[in-house]
Amino acid sequence: MGVVIPLEDNKNKQASIKPLVDLTKSGMERVNQLILSKAGSDVQMIPEVANHLISSGGKRLRPMLTLATAAMFGYEGDHHIKLATSVEFMHTATLLHDDVVDESDLRRGKSTARTIWGNQASVLVGDFLLGQAFRMMVEVGSLDALDVLSTAACVIAEGEVLQLSVAKNMETTEDDYLAVIRAKTAALFAAAAEVGPIVAKTDKATRSALKSYGMNLGLAFQLVDDVLDYGGKSAETGKNVGDDFREGKITLPVILSYRRGTAEEREFWKQSIEGGQSDDERLERALSLIAKYGALNDTIQRAQHYGTIARDALAPLPDTAWKHALNDVIDFCISRVN
Amino acid sequence: MGVVIPLEDNKNKQASIKPLVDLTKSGMERVNQLILSKAGSDVQMIPEVANHLISSGGKRLRPMLTLATAAMFGYEGDHHIKLATSVEFMHTATLLHDDVVDESDLRRGKSTARTIWGNQASVLVGDFLLGQAFRMMVEVGSLDALDVLSTAACVIAEGEVLQLSVAKNMETTEDDYLAVIRAKTAALFAAAAEVGPIVAKTDKATRSALKSYGMNLGLAFQLVDDVLDYGGKSAETGKNVGDDFREGKITLPVILSYRRGTAEEREFWKQSIEGGQSDDERLERALSLIAKYGALNDTIQRAQHYGTIARDALAPLPDTAWKHALNDVIDFCISRVN
Repeated sequence: MGVVIPLEDNKNKQASIKPLVDLTKSGMERVNQLILSKAGSDVQMIPEVANHLISSGGKRLRPMLTLATAAMFGYEGDHHIKLATSVEFMHTATLLHDDVVDESDLRRGKSTARTIWGNQASVLVGDFLLGQAFRMMVEVGSLDALDVLSTAACVIAEGEVLQLSVAKNMETTEDDYLAVIRAKTAALFAAAAEVGPIVAKTDKATRSALKSYGMNLGLAFQLVDDVLDYGGKSAETGKNVGDDFREGKITLPVILSYRRGTAEEREFWKQSIEGGQSDDERLERALSLIAKYGALNDTIQRAQHYGTIARDALAPLPDTAWKHALNDVIDFCISRVN
Repeated sequence: MGVVIPLEDNKNKQASIKPLVDLTKSGMERVNQLILSKAGSDVQMIPEVANHLISSGGKRLRPMLTLATAAMFGYEGDHHIKLATSVEFMHTATLLHDDVVDESDLRRGKSTARTIWGNQASVLVGDFLLGQAFRMMVEVGSLDALDVLSTAACVIAEGEVLQLSVAKNMETTEDDYLAVIRAKTAALFAAAAEVGPIVAKTDKATRSALKSYGMNLGLAFQLVDDVLDYGGKSAETGKNVGDDFREGKITLPVILSYRRGTAEEREFWKQSIEGGQSDDERLERALSLIAKYGALNDTIQRAQHYGTIARDALAPLPDTAWKHALNDVIDFCISRVN
């Protein structure tokens, strides 16, 4: 790969997810135990498939959000443990179904469940985990939390279908794309951060604040993910540079480069994304066009915009270690590109 | 097809689903409206895919069970309408995912959604309908109903995975097979019949009675479905005779014929089901072996056994038109083979 994409220096180099990890450590141990127990089944293939994905080394950011947003208000029961596990199961189910939908062979550098056990097992074990997620929510017994998470389940599925219908269409606008990532990624971040204050029985304004924090953090997270695909270290994402390009996925760096390009450049993008011509030589050209129009830096700036909204959403909350940790997560999500 | 399978005269030739259809008519109109409204989405592909399956002419037996088992205790609100719709959506989601898992091209004689819109849309629209089902349950707000239906969602997925792991294994016992159909079919019948008494706030014994009725009705229903595949009219099921054989599916008629057969006949079954040799000539032989060992009649007798349990479960309930209609449904399910 001959093209190096220079990314602007990010001011938050020290940003880290570590404060959040430290604060939620004992809670996450309980979540991890519950994950293993609820992924169990007498039907042997279920824990096999589930554990393959569960043990594949994700950061578990979503369940940490649920733990933090309950514990920061002094909540000490076990409802947040169960809801955090539900959130992680919803995420895992989505990944299993996504791999079938995208026909992916690799996730985070490991073979996907569907290449080992087949599409069948991926669809059905995803359904099982979703069912277990709902059972845990029912155990908690909060209709508000059930409302938030069942609505998120619908919105996520809707977002995935929307993504299918914008797929390989270069006329997709930035707004269309935002609607997709708001539904398929940010909605679960928002729900994860909203059920914490629900179990902690805070006032409505606090609940809205954390929902807004989660939503905007999720948008920033996904935009940076899109940047990493064209300039990231594959160790960070388990993806190789250009995977999205080769799969004809429309993401913001591509949308910006297309809309800012010449007629001839737009034709190049159409042939690449809509026409499926995406060999290494064309990837080189795509990377140089992305660099020419500053599309990665501008995508990062969009991410910073949403990060700022997330920070302002948190601003009125009491100045605690929890709040600092949640603010650090914003910077961490964005600074992954460095 | 040269082989005609004589089925024993069934004593319940007059059995009909009509009394249940008549009694639930106005309720089912409300369910059908709710189905159309909740299958709606701004994402155009969702109602397209959902309506394809929803309008494909199923009998809607499951939601009728929910309506009947609430209305028979005088319930007059709208909770049973919402839960009946949830049950039908859970069923529809399962069918969408099943078609992907089985790689089916036809369902009830029509092209499956996956052949028209692709596996992707079938997986994701199934997820959407499942999400909508849970949202409606949350609207109803009964944690007991949520518990019953979310547990059913898990059990169904578990049953489907179990079916994968017994697939194409001729050593599957009748017990193994019963465990599969109990989970993948009967559990939803049981849940559909249990949430009626839950919204009608009956006593626990009544709730257990109707759960048991639904479970055993579901077992009888599935066993007869398996018989129809080897001797039915394709107009009834939308399946052609021998579809299960060609797909290498293990059902009770096959299990009985295998276990009762000679060593040479067992070898034939292994080559057919495990080895995938299932051309028309071999189907002829399979049909003649099934006839030789009376496997269809004996499968129907098993169905009658579960039908009797369902009837006895209902026995202590007050002698109303509703109870008669539910009893008629047992006979109807079994007499479909005539």
